[in-house]
Amino acid sequence: MLECEPGDWVEIETEDGKYTGILMERPELAGDKHMVIKLESGYNIGIKKDKIKKIRKISTRIREEFKLKKHERDPSKKDISILATGGTIASRVDYITGGVHSAFSAEELISAVPELGEIANVQGRQIFNKFSENVAPTDWVTIAEAVYEEIKKKASGVVITHGTDTMGYTSAAVAFMLQTSVPVVLTGAQRSSDRGSSDAATNLIHSAIVASCGNFSEVVVVMHAESSDSYSFIHPATKVKKLHSSRRDAFKTVNTKPLGRVFREGVEFMQEVKKDKELTLDTKLDEQVFLLKYFPGLKPSVIDSLVDGGYHGIVLEGTGLGHTAEGLFEGIREAINSDVVVAMTSQTIFGRVNMNVYSTGRILLDTGVIPCEDMLSETAYVKLMWVLGHTRKPDKVREMMLTNYAREVSERSIFTHKNSRKNQ
Amino acid sequence: MLECEPGDWVEIETEDGKYTGILMERPELAGDKHMVIKLESGYNIGIKKDKIKKIRKISTRIREEFKLKKHERDPSKKDISILATGGTIASRVDYITGGVHSAFSAEELISAVPELGEIANVQGRQIFNKFSENVAPTDWVTIAEAVYEEIKKKASGVVITHGTDTMGYTSAAVAFMLQTSVPVVLTGAQRSSDRGSSDAATNLIHSAIVASCGNFSEVVVVMHAESSDSYSFIHPATKVKKLHSSRRDAFKTVNTKPLGRVFREGVEFMQEVKKDKELTLDTKLDEQVFLLKYFPGLKPSVIDSLVDGGYHGIVLEGTGLGHTAEGLFEGIREAINSDVVVAMTSQTIFGRVNMNVYSTGRILLDTGVIPCEDMLSETAYVKLMWVLGHTRKPDKVREMMLTNYAREVSERSIFTHKNSRKNQ
Repeated sequence: MLECEPGDWVEIETEDGKYTGILMERPELAGDKHMVIKLESGYNIGIKKDKIKKIRKISTRIREEFKLKKHERDPSKKDISILATGGTIASRVDYITGGVHSAFSAEELISAVPELGEIANVQGRQIFNKFSENVAPTDWVTIAEAVYEEIKKKASGVVITHGTDTMGYTSAAVAFMLQTSVPVVLTGAQRSSDRGSSDAATNLIHSAIVASCGNFSEVVVVMHAESSDSYSFIHPATKVKKLHSSRRDAFKTVNTKPLGRVFREGVEFMQEVKKDKELTLDTKLDEQVFLLKYFPGLKPSVIDSLVDGGYHGIVLEGTGLGHTAEGLFEGIREAINSDVVVAMTSQTIFGRVNMNVYSTGRILLDTGVIPCEDMLSETAYVKLMWVLGHTRKPDKVREMMLTNYAREVSERSIFTHKNSRKNQ
Repeated sequence: MLECEPGDWVEIETEDGKYTGILMERPELAGDKHMVIKLESGYNIGIKKDKIKKIRKISTRIREEFKLKKHERDPSKKDISILATGGTIASRVDYITGGVHSAFSAEELISAVPELGEIANVQGRQIFNKFSENVAPTDWVTIAEAVYEEIKKKASGVVITHGTDTMGYTSAAVAFMLQTSVPVVLTGAQRSSDRGSSDAATNLIHSAIVASCGNFSEVVVVMHAESSDSYSFIHPATKVKKLHSSRRDAFKTVNTKPLGRVFREGVEFMQEVKKDKELTLDTKLDEQVFLLKYFPGLKPSVIDSLVDGGYHGIVLEGTGLGHTAEGLFEGIREAINSDVVVAMTSQTIFGRVNMNVYSTGRILLDTGVIPCEDMLSETAYVKLMWVLGHTRKPDKVREMMLTNYAREVSERSIFTHKNSRKNQ
């Protein structure tokens, strides 16, 4: 048994019969009690070791193929860096428990998707290994710094692989922190790479195409555009939200159009993109910010306890055009008087806050609440952390929150329907 | 000047010229300094009183037409009740400030939409008058009780006019509290009724058609289906979310199909609907529930302070399939050990939590977190209040949270795409 390694083609004889397939890496949670092989049908099965009578190695062919290939640098191709941070794109299923574990290194990712070598000279680096629900604001800084380093080292583009759960928060953070001179692409996978329906390879290939396309300089998210494999969308980093828990086309651009589409054949832009030459990094963040979703019955004391808790800013995810119950007004006023910034977004996701329409909104505006236009709540939260990292002067905070740094605010109205109001 | 009343056709002479139009109700915020007239062009203008030299009444025609009409009861038609609670559907614009105020009574609403008389014998009652951002859980009880009374008094259907901001929370609450024997319809308007683009009349007419259609017994939301006036969707009360801050077609059915569509000509069902004969009311609610949206950087102490604050339940709007940072696990465990119920939904809005896929989810499940399937966060919040109003026994709470009372959980997978996994 010891002579067999993952990737070997083996025959396993048990009390119940013989199984032939590829010996898989031992999944972490499986412990020492099982072996897992991928059958010719494509299915993986776990076999209890104490039922195994005999194992025979048929060939090492697959193992050899799986070994990391070293490519010669092709001077006709762009040099791009892949920075791995964990998540489903870098994970495999535990066939005993059915769970998914974050595992692949950047090098393994590159090796697993040989098409990348056709697109660019690819270098990989693992900067950390976390599911994205565990990614914290300090990790955003780590990522932005790593991207900055890669660009300083002359990468023509950078791809960051990231869990999908909080990718929209991270992409917004990197977009605020980094003024980039090359394409910076965040990507992930909704289904792990050992599933037939995995989007890992397609997203990685499309991301590499965007990162090496050479003619723009923005932070973007590249993910599956539809349920087939035909193309991906290039989403603006600050206007993208994961809007489905499991579908491969979960990521949507909200309140504007995607920046473009990417096919195997190349990139097709749908909006004008930036082509800056300047590279700057500004990672200052104030973590004392709370994202508070309003709900009927929310007790006014919650605002007080955030103020008492030392928070410097609150993003209120209000209702409709940017409202909360009037019972909160007094607490909001006191928060603002205590130099706590209060900014308003909408839990409708789509559309723009407009606090001039109803008396509720006007009172909140008079109180000093900052209306976050059509920013996503998640983006407004990240932005307020970044802004408060630079200043706590109320006027300056307001000015910065209302300045469009990274596409987080769309121009008013992309509607043209005859029935729609102006200033939608 | 005293002889003119709102609705009169008047000519106003000022220093700057003459204006002819319909004298409008004096908007509340305009104070005594302005008069407002609707010009023949349809525009309203405010005229400073101290600039007015002379006012001449041309006719009282419009005023007479605006007077409330008393209809004879038509025994061939169904009897429906309209319960008004405030909101944009019952509001008018203040032409001086541009703001919107909640004002119309139920009777005025009925009078303003004469088509209602063609559909049913309509009775109206104002139960309160609030913008929906001010609607609190106690108001849900008031509404459910009022609907119950109307049905006891033999209404064949009930329409509740309500602000749109929190209509989804209220509709879910009424659906949990009331087992109805007739159609109960919540409706509202995204644009006030004195705008050309108002959806108030159409939504009210479509709601009356649904309320009087006689062949189902559920709580639903009826709102504009698309940007034209052609039809409205009949949304399940627990699966509907306002997904745009200003569009008339802002309301969407999430994670299932709408129950049906309603045209001027009648109702077309898209799902099988309930036809119960039983009427019961059960309004017990525990208001000690918090809806907590997870975000990267959320401090674990937040969970502790909710426990210390005497909350009995927390709905965590997690990421993706139902995750939070592992830094929160300890606090969640302690909350559950302190008999605080923790239930999980997803901030992706669409899709289902599935906490068996990743280790994060499995740990949370083991801790005792209740996975809320494909429930909207808002619905899960309302449901947990209602469940905790009945029991605080952990096993019973879990059983009730996972029981489908009012369509809040969809059957698994309505996808049929070849690439999608089963159990989507």
